[in-house]
Amino acid sequence: MLKRHHPDSEILLLLPSSTGHNLKMTNMQLAVQFFIQIAVILTVCQVVGFLAKRVGQPQVVAEMLAGVLLGPSLFGLFWPEWSSKLFPADSMKVLFPISQLGLAAYMFVVGLEFRMDIVQRRLGSAVAVSLAGMITPFVLGVGLGWFFFNHTAFFPQKTSLLEATIFLGASMCITAFPMLARIIHFKKLTGTTMGTVALGAGAIDDAAAWCLLAVVLASFDSNISHAVQNIAGGAGYVCITLLVIKPLLARWARGIENRQALADGEFVICLILLALGAWFTDLIGLHAVFGAFVMGIAMPRGVVSRALIDRVQPLTVALLLPLFFTYSGLNTRIGLLDSGYLWLMTSLVMVAAVGGKGVACWLAARATGVSNREALGIGTLMNARGLMELIIINIGLQRGIISPALFATLVIMAVITTLMASPIFDYLVGRHGVPPEPEPLGSKHGSASFPG
Amino acid sequence: MLKRHHPDSEILLLLPSSTGHNLKMTNMQLAVQFFIQIAVILTVCQVVGFLAKRVGQPQVVAEMLAGVLLGPSLFGLFWPEWSSKLFPADSMKVLFPISQLGLAAYMFVVGLEFRMDIVQRRLGSAVAVSLAGMITPFVLGVGLGWFFFNHTAFFPQKTSLLEATIFLGASMCITAFPMLARIIHFKKLTGTTMGTVALGAGAIDDAAAWCLLAVVLASFDSNISHAVQNIAGGAGYVCITLLVIKPLLARWARGIENRQALADGEFVICLILLALGAWFTDLIGLHAVFGAFVMGIAMPRGVVSRALIDRVQPLTVALLLPLFFTYSGLNTRIGLLDSGYLWLMTSLVMVAAVGGKGVACWLAARATGVSNREALGIGTLMNARGLMELIIINIGLQRGIISPALFATLVIMAVITTLMASPIFDYLVGRHGVPPEPEPLGSKHGSASFPG
Repeated sequence: MLKRHHPDSEILLLLPSSTGHNLKMTNMQLAVQFFIQIAVILTVCQVVGFLAKRVGQPQVVAEMLAGVLLGPSLFGLFWPEWSSKLFPADSMKVLFPISQLGLAAYMFVVGLEFRMDIVQRRLGSAVAVSLAGMITPFVLGVGLGWFFFNHTAFFPQKTSLLEATIFLGASMCITAFPMLARIIHFKKLTGTTMGTVALGAGAIDDAAAWCLLAVVLASFDSNISHAVQNIAGGAGYVCITLLVIKPLLARWARGIENRQALADGEFVICLILLALGAWFTDLIGLHAVFGAFVMGIAMPRGVVSRALIDRVQPLTVALLLPLFFTYSGLNTRIGLLDSGYLWLMTSLVMVAAVGGKGVACWLAARATGVSNREALGIGTLMNARGLMELIIINIGLQRGIISPALFATLVIMAVITTLMASPIFDYLVGRHGVPPEPEPLGSKHGSASFPG
Repeated sequence: MLKRHHPDSEILLLLPSSTGHNLKMTNMQLAVQFFIQIAVILTVCQVVGFLAKRVGQPQVVAEMLAGVLLGPSLFGLFWPEWSSKLFPADSMKVLFPISQLGLAAYMFVVGLEFRMDIVQRRLGSAVAVSLAGMITPFVLGVGLGWFFFNHTAFFPQKTSLLEATIFLGASMCITAFPMLARIIHFKKLTGTTMGTVALGAGAIDDAAAWCLLAVVLASFDSNISHAVQNIAGGAGYVCITLLVIKPLLARWARGIENRQALADGEFVICLILLALGAWFTDLIGLHAVFGAFVMGIAMPRGVVSRALIDRVQPLTVALLLPLFFTYSGLNTRIGLLDSGYLWLMTSLVMVAAVGGKGVACWLAARATGVSNREALGIGTLMNARGLMELIIINIGLQRGIISPALFATLVIMAVITTLMASPIFDYLVGRHGVPPEPEPLGSKHGSASFPG
C-alpha cells in the first residue's frame, strides 16, 4: 500500500470564496463596484494577454490566468485589504450571473458558427472521436478510481467504490468546451474539419460528462430523480430545439432572407430564445453552455446567423466573456504541491488524462480517414480540460466526493492540459492551421472573425 | 390655507422593493433566475412595444411601461406569488448593476453620436436652451416649493424652507436625458440641429439638477463635503476627459485611421475608459450616465467612433437597455390619486413643469434663430422628465425631504410629461422630423442607425 499523503502538505485549493454569504451592499454600491471591477479585469486581461501572446498562449488562457492573479493566489495574498475592497464577497454574486450571460452569449455564437454540413460529411470521424474521447478516458478514470479507492486516502469514507470510479471517469471525460471554442476561433480554425470535428466531439463529450456527474450526485444523494431530469431533460431539449424549433425558425427566416435584413424586433426574438435555452439547461442541471450552443445551431443560416454573429459577438467577446474566465480564476487558490507522493499521483493522473483523451482522439481521427496533421490537432484540442474540469471537480470537493488532495492533483491536470494545448498545437500542426472547408452551396455564411 | 390632503388617500407610490435586503440565493440560482428574467422582460417589452407603436409611443416608453406592468402595479398585484417567484428581492441586486452597465454603454454610444460641430455652430441656441430649461423651471419650482411649504403638508417637519425650495427647483430642472437620447434616435434626429441642441442642453440641465440635489442632500445632512465632491469632481471629470484624454485619444487614433480598422485590444481599451468614466461619476454621486456620455464625446471621430458604435450598440440596445428601463418600472407602484385636492396640486405642478421647461426652451430656441418647427421639437423633447425624475424624487422620498403626497404628484408629472412627448412632437413637428445637418468635412461619421 502506498504511503498516505501528509495532511498538512500545502496543496492546491479551489474554493468558492463566497458560499452562503449574505449581501449587505446597496444596489448603488454594487453598481459602482461593478464598473471598477470591469475596468480592472479588462486591464489585467489585456496586460496578461500581451505577455501570454509572446509565449504562444491564446487570449483565453490569459483571461483565466488574469483571474488567478487577481484572486487569492497573488493579489489577495499580498494585498488582502485591496483584494477584499475590489472584490467584496457581495459583488461576486453580481459578477457570476453576468459572467454566465457572457458565456451563454458566446456559446450561442459558437453554435451559430458551427458547420453542421462538415459534421454530416465527417460524421464517422466526429462520432469516432467523441466515443474515443469519452470511453477511453472514462475507462482509464474508472481504473484510476479503483486504484485510488483501494490504495490511497484520495476518497473520503462516505464515498462508495461505484461513486468514486464514476466520478473520476466523468472528470477524465471533460473537454474544455468553451475554451476549445475560443482557441479554435483564435487559431482561425472555424469552418475547418479539424475545428468542427473537435467542437462537435467536445460538445458531446462534455454533455456526457455532465450526465455522468448527475448520476454520481444522484447516487451520492440516494435520489435518482436529479439524474433522470438531467439526462431526459437534456435529450428532450436537444430534440425539441433541433426537430421543432429549428424547422420553425427556418420557415420564419424566409421573409428575412428576401429583404436581406434582420429587424430589431427579430433580433430580440433570437435573444429571447437564447435566454430560454440557457435558462432551461441550467435549470435541469446540464449547464447553460449547452442550451446556448444548441440554440445557436438551431438558428437559420444566412442573413440571420450573420446578423446575429455581427451583433452579439463583439461586445460579448470584449466585455462579458473575460468576466467569465476571470471569475473562474478568481475562485481558484493555487498553492504548492510539495510532497513527492502527490507529484507521483499527479503524474499517474496526467498519463491517464493525456493518454485517454489526446492520444485516443488522435487515433480515432486517424482511423476514420482524417489527415495526420489534422488528427494531431484534434487530439491536442480535445485534450485541454480548462474551466469545465475546474467546475466539475469543484462540485466533487464541495459535496465531499473527493478529498482536497485528489482535488489538487486534478486541478494540476486541468491547468497543465490547458496550458500545453496551444504550444503543442503550434508545434505539431503549425501556427497557421489548415485551410477551411469549402462553403456549402447556397450558404453565404463565412467564418465570423472579429468584425472591424 | 388650502385643505390638507387626506392621509389615507390612495396615492402613487414609487418605493424600491429591496432596500436593505440580504441575499440568500446561491450564485447558481441567481444565474438561472437571471436568464428567465431576461426572457420574460424582453418578451413583455416586445409585446408592449408592438401595442405602443400603434398609439405613437416609442419603444423606450414601452420598456418603461413593461416594467410597470411586470412590477407591483399589475403583475405583482394580481399574481403576487408568481411575481415574487420571477423577481425575488435577491435577484434585483443582480438586475440593477447590469442595467446600469447597459445604461452606461448606451450613453457612451449617445456620446459617440454627439455632434460637437453642430453644438459649436449652434452654441448660442444650446446655451440659451439649457439656461432657459434650467433657470425657468428652477424659479417656478422654487416658487411652488415656497407655496407648498407654507400652505400644505407636502414637506415633512424636518425639511427647511431652503431645502424644500431647492429640492423642488432641482426636480423641475430634470430632463429625461437617456430617454431623450432614445427618442431622438427613434425619430432619426441624430445629427440634426434639433436633436443635437436638445441633447446638449439636456445633458447640461441634468448635470446641474444633480448638483442641486447634492446641495440639498448636503444641507439636509449638514455635511457640505458631498456637494463639493459632486460639483468639483464633476467639473474636474469633464475638464480632464475633454482637455487631456480627448487629445491623447485623437493622437492614438491616427494609426487606427491609417489602417482603417480598430483592433480587438484597442476596442477593449475604449471599454476600459468607458467603465472608468462610469465608475468615477457614480462614485462622486453624479451618476454613471454623465461619465459614459462625456467619455463617448471624447472618443476620436471616424474609424474609432464608427467601430465602437457598430460593436457596442446592437447588443446594448436589444438586451441590456431594456433591463434598465424595465428595472426602473419594476420599482414603481402606481395607485390612483382619488382626492380632488391632490389633482389640483398636480395640475399646478404640471403647469409649472411644462411652462418652465417645454415653453421656456421653445422660446429660447426661437430667440436664438432656430426655426419654429425645430424650436417646438426642442421644447417638446426637453419637457419629458422620464426616469431621471423618478430617480431624483425617489431619493427625496427615501431621505424624507418630501412627503408621499408630493412624491405622488411628481410621479404623475414625470409620467405625463414623458407620455406626451412623442404624440405632441408628432403633431407639432411631424412624424419624419427634419433633415440632418451636413457632415463636417473630413468626417465619415454618419447617423448610426441600428445596423442590419
